[in-house]
Amino acid sequence: MTTSVFEHPWLKGLFGDAQMAAVLAPERQLAHMLAFEAAWSRACGAAGLFDADDAAQAAEAIENATIDPAILERGMASDGVPVPALVQHLKTIAPANAVHKGATSQDVVDTALVLSLREASILISDRLEELERHLRDLEVRFGDNNMMGRTRMQAATTMAVRERVLEWRLPIADHLITLNQKRRDVEKVQIGGASGDRKALGDKAAAVVDHVAKELDLAATDKAWHAMRHGIAGYASFLSLITGTLGKMGLDVTLMAQQGIDEIALSGGGGSSAMPHKQNPISAELLVTLARFNAVQVSAMHHAVIHEQERSGTAWTLEWMVLPQMLMTTARALSVAIDMTQKIDRIGTR
Amino acid sequence: MTTSVFEHPWLKGLFGDAQMAAVLAPERQLAHMLAFEAAWSRACGAAGLFDADDAAQAAEAIENATIDPAILERGMASDGVPVPALVQHLKTIAPANAVHKGATSQDVVDTALVLSLREASILISDRLEELERHLRDLEVRFGDNNMMGRTRMQAATTMAVRERVLEWRLPIADHLITLNQKRRDVEKVQIGGASGDRKALGDKAAAVVDHVAKELDLAATDKAWHAMRHGIAGYASFLSLITGTLGKMGLDVTLMAQQGIDEIALSGGGGSSAMPHKQNPISAELLVTLARFNAVQVSAMHHAVIHEQERSGTAWTLEWMVLPQMLMTTARALSVAIDMTQKIDRIGTR
Amino acid sequence: MTTSVFEHPWLKGLFGDAQMAAVLAPERQLAHMLAFEAAWSRACGAAGLFDADDAAQAAEAIENATIDPAILERGMASDGVPVPALVQHLKTIAPANAVHKGATSQDVVDTALVLSLREASILISDRLEELERHLRDLEVRFGDNNMMGRTRMQAATTMAVRERVLEWRLPIADHLITLNQKRRDVEKVQIGGASGDRKALGDKAAAVVDHVAKELDLAATDKAWHAMRHGIAGYASFLSLITGTLGKMGLDVTLMAQQGIDEIALSGGGGSSAMPHKQNPISAELLVTLARFNAVQVSAMHHAVIHEQERSGTAWTLEWMVLPQMLMTTARALSVAIDMTQKIDRIGTR
Amino acid sequence: MTTSVFEHPWLKGLFGDAQMAAVLAPERQLAHMLAFEAAWSRACGAAGLFDADDAAQAAEAIENATIDPAILERGMASDGVPVPALVQHLKTIAPANAVHKGATSQDVVDTALVLSLREASILISDRLEELERHLRDLEVRFGDNNMMGRTRMQAATTMAVRERVLEWRLPIADHLITLNQKRRDVEKVQIGGASGDRKALGDKAAAVVDHVAKELDLAATDKAWHAMRHGIAGYASFLSLITGTLGKMGLDVTLMAQQGIDEIALSGGGGSSAMPHKQNPISAELLVTLARFNAVQVSAMHHAVIHEQERSGTAWTLEWMVLPQMLMTTARALSVAIDMTQKIDRIGTR
Repeated sequence: MTTSVFEHPWLKGLFGDAQMAAVLAPERQLAHMLAFEAAWSRACGAAGLFDADDAAQAAEAIENATIDPAILERGMASDGVPVPALVQHLKTIAPANAVHKGATSQDVVDTALVLSLREASILISDRLEELERHLRDLEVRFGDNNMMGRTRMQAATTMAVRERVLEWRLPIADHLITLNQKRRDVEKVQIGGASGDRKALGDKAAAVVDHVAKELDLAATDKAWHAMRHGIAGYASFLSLITGTLGKMGLDVTLMAQQGIDEIALSGGGGSSAMPHKQNPISAELLVTLARFNAVQVSAMHHAVIHEQERSGTAWTLEWMVLPQMLMTTARALSVAIDMTQKIDRIGTR
Repeated sequence: MTTSVFEHPWLKGLFGDAQMAAVLAPERQLAHMLAFEAAWSRACGAAGLFDADDAAQAAEAIENATIDPAILERGMASDGVPVPALVQHLKTIAPANAVHKGATSQDVVDTALVLSLREASILISDRLEELERHLRDLEVRFGDNNMMGRTRMQAATTMAVRERVLEWRLPIADHLITLNQKRRDVEKVQIGGASGDRKALGDKAAAVVDHVAKELDLAATDKAWHAMRHGIAGYASFLSLITGTLGKMGLDVTLMAQQGIDEIALSGGGGSSAMPHKQNPISAELLVTLARFNAVQVSAMHHAVIHEQERSGTAWTLEWMVLPQMLMTTARALSVAIDMTQKIDRIGTR
Repeated sequence: MTTSVFEHPWLKGLFGDAQMAAVLAPERQLAHMLAFEAAWSRACGAAGLFDADDAAQAAEAIENATIDPAILERGMASDGVPVPALVQHLKTIAPANAVHKGATSQDVVDTALVLSLREASILISDRLEELERHLRDLEVRFGDNNMMGRTRMQAATTMAVRERVLEWRLPIADHLITLNQKRRDVEKVQIGGASGDRKALGDKAAAVVDHVAKELDLAATDKAWHAMRHGIAGYASFLSLITGTLGKMGLDVTLMAQQGIDEIALSGGGGSSAMPHKQNPISAELLVTLARFNAVQVSAMHHAVIHEQERSGTAWTLEWMVLPQMLMTTARALSVAIDMTQKIDRIGTR
Repeated sequence: MTTSVFEHPWLKGLFGDAQMAAVLAPERQLAHMLAFEAAWSRACGAAGLFDADDAAQAAEAIENATIDPAILERGMASDGVPVPALVQHLKTIAPANAVHKGATSQDVVDTALVLSLREASILISDRLEELERHLRDLEVRFGDNNMMGRTRMQAATTMAVRERVLEWRLPIADHLITLNQKRRDVEKVQIGGASGDRKALGDKAAAVVDHVAKELDLAATDKAWHAMRHGIAGYASFLSLITGTLGKMGLDVTLMAQQGIDEIALSGGGGSSAMPHKQNPISAELLVTLARFNAVQVSAMHHAVIHEQERSGTAWTLEWMVLPQMLMTTARALSVAIDMTQKIDRIGTR
């Protein structure tokens, strides 16, 4: 059992997101690490750094490897990263001289991260598109209705419901565009070796990088990006902008659903143990909570940009604690918003 | 499997803390909720609000209840809190008219939280004491050695190692004192009922509150504290002060362990996949990471003090996402520090 | 002119607080630094570390010194602290051998900080008391009225207005008690010298510390606290708890003042350039803003606890950027709350 | 006098940035607000909403107006925004029927903000370019030298100094590209009127928006963006990424400058009041401080995205407290970095 709200046996009923959980599942992370190691063996084989037959054999063995997580856990405890233990194990099941040589922990872990981010981005993109459709639909259904425009929590002037719905939808349209930029910022293979200078690869460095990048369908780079975390932090900031705009929608809905205001009718909604008749706008509240959560976490990702030297154990590790949670939060906020928009029976009045 | 570093199959090798995980385990939280409900039935029975026999029978049934977490998960999804589903179930296994009546979700969840905090505080207290002993021991062993005092990352003047060790130990001594204050701030039963005014209890309110408080060994209060979260946020702030001072120790150790500085000798330390000879100060780095993590999370707990009306779905829920992680982080930082202090073979020179 | 909201030529109309600004005014900070230096000369004279006549003469000259801030500004630019330039100047107006010797920058700046905090605490204490009186008065005037208790932004059950007002007042009563603890945590003289070990004072260290502490009416300590910042960060956390609880009150009032809810009548309130008839609950909104501001800033103060070695240029400097703003924010929130409670003409209905 | 480090009489010696201070100066903000109001009068005149002669006369009077800040300060205190007081005053010096009508506070304040951001972006762009040149120069001068690559604070393998310098320069090159995207995201006129629906402009809305946008050289939008703050928060996040990458450089330099490491030689550096011979890496430390400051503030900007309804007094106001400080911090970090790179006499060894 776990204390994480995303997997907690009953809290996950509110916070859990099965699809993003699958994207970020440890077994999937491990598959990405193995994909890197296999590509590495092949690339070094092709470049003549490894014996060609050994490399081919190693890549196949790595791809088909079954790894006991306990091995990685013990390695994590002693090394602070899972890679040394993983590599040691791989060398027992594959030709040792064609495994990992010339790479380092950051290459494995950060390339695997990027592969996770790609899958996460696709999920997020799909949900942004679906949410945008539902918001367009709300506009069609209720856009011509009237409601009170409100500024500083006070009634201002009557406006079309369309105006409010546009405040919810237009940011989503922007996010869809920005997501493509952010994907380009992060979907880059990480290859640096010991101090990040690719020295062990000699004049084969470019060839190896290109090969691995191509095999994993990532962009190649001239320099290892591991010690330059602004791309990752920029991606995380973008996640928080998504949840922030959904939080605005959620906050609006909680205010619209108040007795005495009654600007929205929602089907579903939560019960109360003391007052069974009460309908609580659970989904709308949750959007606010998730937005504030990410608005806090984003700070950690910006601190992690202050990454000393060629690899910071402190800054890198901080990302591991925070970024998966930001992804889970973003995915959950999107699914809640998609669900909530479909449960809106009325906004405003004719 | 899970994305949380505290329970992730291999990341837990670095971040996991079995003892705090046990304190915060869902089954333990459930036990605390049932303890409240049983005490509630008994208290209302004693006060004449429930039929005495029914109350006794209900309390016993509740204490011996086995709850399928899936029931709570479904309730969580629909209600945003697990309590309505829990109560509905309890009424099927106990005399329904002697279950929960007069209480509300916040009473169950927040009293259960406080019971968790009490167990967490005891664990933290034990570890603070143990750490302080190890730090005293370091002082005995190495206090008279010399080392360079350093200000603004520059060599200043030579000083006794004692001075540095005192910078690590004295805050721990302070924290032990503060912990007692913080425990008094939070170890209070939460009882309010529907809108937090205890109206349903009529003139029996004080008797019921006292009875439940006594049974759970918590302090009674004149007013439900649910909508006043400064005690909880103050407790969380204290957790972050603990990890902050351990982060200072960790940062110092990473700096002392640099080649060319060599002010400390540590046994153990982490390996590298590229450079097997390298000894990384994993524990010291982790202390910095955990400190920065809590220094970020504490912000969320302060936002959660802005808790509207008689119960905020948004602010309360934000605590659930953050506070357990702060407890895990604090416990882990303490165990790391305890471990690290025992692996110090030398500080400074004679 | 300035970009700071607290002194900006028109934004200060909303954010400014003349009394706290006076407490934190640079000339007042300078006076505190000079008070330390004068006490230092006297203490070292009394201890026989300085020539007695020179020390007396120096103390008097220092107390009567007029310092051109430009001197300190230049020193700040070159040294990162104002003290070397200050001391160099003092040595030109006082017997040089009886000035500052044995002390260091942190002693001057942090003891001056503590003197500022004492004055700030007194101001905060006065306002907490005044606010509590006004809240008691609200209870007397409107406590028996009825209003809707609201949970999860939904009407729950009718309750006495007293219940809501208690949610605002009881935390203030708690804060008054906590403030005394926090004052004891921080009102300590900082004396360490070069590496913080008081070595330059030899066996006169305790005498000098006691003398300075007594003269400045601060507590003495056995060890310089400069590299142990949990006291300062704990104080800052407390400031944010104050604003957090006021933010809860502000948020409640914005919700009560909505058309269609109408649970509160406020005199005053802000105008709109587009809708002159509109009355905006400016004060209540500002309380929320100030609470969120401090809830963010508190994170910086916790990061600053991770203070490497005997003096961190990075962590210490971060406090200078944040703590004065937290004090201004807290003072302003209290004055706004005091003002707002006096403008409440009605809460709830009979 | 002021408590803000950016304008404090001596702290500004370390934190102040005269050029960004000029960009953000209140008189410049006021000029931007007047520029909006003048453009508004002309645009409404051209569209036939205002009498043409009155509009021309009003625009000229507004452009030449001298406003006593005390008027705005009083307005700020009563209204929470300066615009109602400003407009009231403008109507006394210009044909009242051709002033502001159809616009609202958010249009004036947020369009003025965007005009400030444009000037700030140009300053930041110039400095990013200058810094990149200096970093290229470092690469030319020292790139072939050797230094120890360091991972997890431990010596790893020897590498060319070029590798380290690239970790500093490449993010700057990225930032220059991103800045153009961010400028497009924010340099948009804000026009909405009372509830943000442009209703008062009728079928002339598009013409008025285009006219004002063209006159102020901003992009036009189909919908007022005031309640959609992701653009502003995204811009602020970008500022923090800049300072984060400079913080990485600063942290590296503090570590390189340690005695016993000696990987860098810096001319200049700060003095100590206790040890006059000591050279402190003030600039490098300051870069870390500024990075952590922005990494904290960015959280506030993300909370401000949760902007309820058509205008949030709480969220909007929070931006005013934070964004100018983030701009000052970013500008100062860039000027410090530019200065520091020019004071590097050596990196690594031949």
